[in-house]
Amino acid sequence: MTGHRVLVIGADGAGMSAAHQMLRTARDRGRELAVTVLDAGQHTSYSACGIPYVVSGEVAGIDDLVARTAQEHRAAGIDLRLGSRVTHLDLEAGVATVEGADPVEFDEVVVATGASPVMPAWSRGPAGEPVAGVMPAKDLDDAEAWASRFADGAGERVVVIGGGYIGVEMAEAALRRGLEVALVTRSRVLSTFHPEISARVTASLVRAGVEVHLDSEVEGLEVHEGVVTGVRVGSDVLAAHHVVVALGVRPATDFLAHTDLRQPNGALRPDERGQVAPGVWAAGDCCEVQARPVGEWVYVPLGTHANKLGRVVGENLAGGDLRFPGVLGTAITRFAAGEEYIEIARTGVSTRNPGNIADTCVSLVTEGTTITGYMPGAPTITLLVSADRITRRLLAVEIVGGQGAGKRIDAAAAVLWAGGTVDDLAWMDLSYAPPVATAWEVLQIAARRVAELIDHEAAGG
Amino acid sequence: MTGHRVLVIGADGAGMSAAHQMLRTARDRGRELAVTVLDAGQHTSYSACGIPYVVSGEVAGIDDLVARTAQEHRAAGIDLRLGSRVTHLDLEAGVATVEGADPVEFDEVVVATGASPVMPAWSRGPAGEPVAGVMPAKDLDDAEAWASRFADGAGERVVVIGGGYIGVEMAEAALRRGLEVALVTRSRVLSTFHPEISARVTASLVRAGVEVHLDSEVEGLEVHEGVVTGVRVGSDVLAAHHVVVALGVRPATDFLAHTDLRQPNGALRPDERGQVAPGVWAAGDCCEVQARPVGEWVYVPLGTHANKLGRVVGENLAGGDLRFPGVLGTAITRFAAGEEYIEIARTGVSTRNPGNIADTCVSLVTEGTTITGYMPGAPTITLLVSADRITRRLLAVEIVGGQGAGKRIDAAAAVLWAGGTVDDLAWMDLSYAPPVATAWEVLQIAARRVAELIDHEAAGG
Repeated sequence: MTGHRVLVIGADGAGMSAAHQMLRTARDRGRELAVTVLDAGQHTSYSACGIPYVVSGEVAGIDDLVARTAQEHRAAGIDLRLGSRVTHLDLEAGVATVEGADPVEFDEVVVATGASPVMPAWSRGPAGEPVAGVMPAKDLDDAEAWASRFADGAGERVVVIGGGYIGVEMAEAALRRGLEVALVTRSRVLSTFHPEISARVTASLVRAGVEVHLDSEVEGLEVHEGVVTGVRVGSDVLAAHHVVVALGVRPATDFLAHTDLRQPNGALRPDERGQVAPGVWAAGDCCEVQARPVGEWVYVPLGTHANKLGRVVGENLAGGDLRFPGVLGTAITRFAAGEEYIEIARTGVSTRNPGNIADTCVSLVTEGTTITGYMPGAPTITLLVSADRITRRLLAVEIVGGQGAGKRIDAAAAVLWAGGTVDDLAWMDLSYAPPVATAWEVLQIAARRVAELIDHEAAGG
Repeated sequence: MTGHRVLVIGADGAGMSAAHQMLRTARDRGRELAVTVLDAGQHTSYSACGIPYVVSGEVAGIDDLVARTAQEHRAAGIDLRLGSRVTHLDLEAGVATVEGADPVEFDEVVVATGASPVMPAWSRGPAGEPVAGVMPAKDLDDAEAWASRFADGAGERVVVIGGGYIGVEMAEAALRRGLEVALVTRSRVLSTFHPEISARVTASLVRAGVEVHLDSEVEGLEVHEGVVTGVRVGSDVLAAHHVVVALGVRPATDFLAHTDLRQPNGALRPDERGQVAPGVWAAGDCCEVQARPVGEWVYVPLGTHANKLGRVVGENLAGGDLRFPGVLGTAITRFAAGEEYIEIARTGVSTRNPGNIADTCVSLVTEGTTITGYMPGAPTITLLVSADRITRRLLAVEIVGGQGAGKRIDAAAAVLWAGGTVDDLAWMDLSYAPPVATAWEVLQIAARRVAELIDHEAAGG
């Protein structure tokens, strides 16, 4: 190996995007890079977002989630070493300590270690050991374990702890496997959404047969001979053969605890070129990113940002100049079980940071259909549109509805991206035909109502 | 009746949007308007776009297409007179001549007469009379007639003449009714689309059983005892029990032939406030509109523009100040028959006016899937992205693909609306979850490929 030595820590989306991009860019520029990638686990470049669909059986197995195999990465010229956990990083000397292996020297390093599931003390045994039947749904090993448990679990009871995207998706997976499902959340289901949108998701879960416990704190587990039998919620015990812990994730950066690179929550804050410090780059779920339009730092661990920031890091590390343009917090999921089918989406992070909910934010919930009402089976849709009453700028949009509802968020995201107003959204030229839309697109009806509300207030109404 | 007298000619989307908006705005501003609406036909406010779905039987009948009845309009204070054809307009004197009725005086007039179907000389009998079995698919009477003919037409043969949206939609309707379908077009199917997108639509029609005749000029009809029996195309005769003439429309403005308000194609050109001349306003399919970003006049008769421009006219006529912000030529349709299902959409008019296809336009066709490839039944999608190689501005996007493909055009339209670049589209924060999208949204993959092509060319590649 010759040339500039780059060490990438983490072989998932962010790390491998960075590794491949730096090799491509270096080749185009006639540079030589020696790229080593270390990962503590045994898997590379997998779609973590696909895990619930392996668990549900919709996707046959975890191999389907792997975008590129280790062999393919190596064939591209990457020195990929799996099962290699970095326990310490000496940034001064350029040396990574690797558990059970020789240290690795580097000229520059990319931190792409992702995130670890939050596992509270109560989710483990007295000595911190795992409890049989209690797991997160974070990596491919979890996916395989849950798929196998649920495949044989029809009629058994699972308690899903956490009402975020993963919680909702794992509830769906369990229902599809024929399990009985309870879902426990500290606040609401999808609590980053407006209460009215959140309530519609909850109602859909309930119609699908999920026993939903809102505003409920888990006190502990009931365990019999090392195997979980229930979850204590207040004075109740919810019986459980299986417990999915879906309480979110936190940046996997403990090996950097001795540095001053981390925020209190453990996250790194790469600049728009992807750099954290000279010679230190970062991308993926171990990072915070900046939200448009204001630029506040937010922790929104999503594959979309990981892939983009990874590519930015790779390009710049090899001498290019690409800027990560920030995020809007755009996200989507689906809940589909039996007769129930909803899509849920949002864009715009500003309204969920209390500091950003200015007095000037106007929000309105609008009901409609995704296709023309006279067409058979027109799915319903509910939208929240938020805008600033002074600047009229669009701040956020949230959607819940049937087939075709969710991806409408992208048009709203595009308006937000450009710093557009609620009037831009209301009047722009969107597509219409009866089987796929309404003559006034429902997004635009919702935006127009907010514009009219602002006008009305301005007129002293 | 007291107050300022407004005459609206045409009781469809544009006219009735204008009428209702002017009454609302006048009420808010304490003004008095006397609004009379005249229409030559017997129907108001109907969804012309829904006609093919009545013909196919998906929608039960034409009443379902009527958004508001004549009674509802009258209850809102509009003096609506159906069966009232305006044959002459004296703009100087403010008098409309009405066939078989008293003239109507006005202070201001709104022309919202829409468009008439193009019916070439060969589509009529020697004396210009209709031929039994040969009709357009333009209004509710046509809808009712075709629905009735097709309902009893299984096994019969229909020749659809014209490969535009209506032609494709009527072919679908006929297939769904069990007819045999031939489609004849002078050039390609959906000829405003890029040849590769157009070819995919043609292939879908053919797979669904349509006999497609490209680059074929209709010479005339075969008629037996006043009833059509075939269509002559070159030296061939295509047998036909029914002939749908879907050759487009032209502005219905003959009654203004004595004025200097019309363009050579018959269209009016309202300014951004909706005014054609002092006291003369216009909206809907009788108008050209200005395309963003350049501002060229285009004839794109679509309900979306009609509704918006009608509202602008109504607001301004009653003393408000609302500007019609222009169009992108965004459009969508679906073709669904038997196993076939495609959605087809476009945005950006600039590439279809030869004068605008500058040397600096770069286009690329990209193939992908609308949802993650490992999910079962991931629909395919083909996208054309065009951008300017100097400014990198997005110029146009065209899409053909399965469920969920078409409405993706709206995110592209939003970028075009803001004058954004292909890089904006490639890097913006769009939504992802495996059942509804790919991790790099396919729109963004397509945009990135165009960006890379521009970079590559700039580097002398």
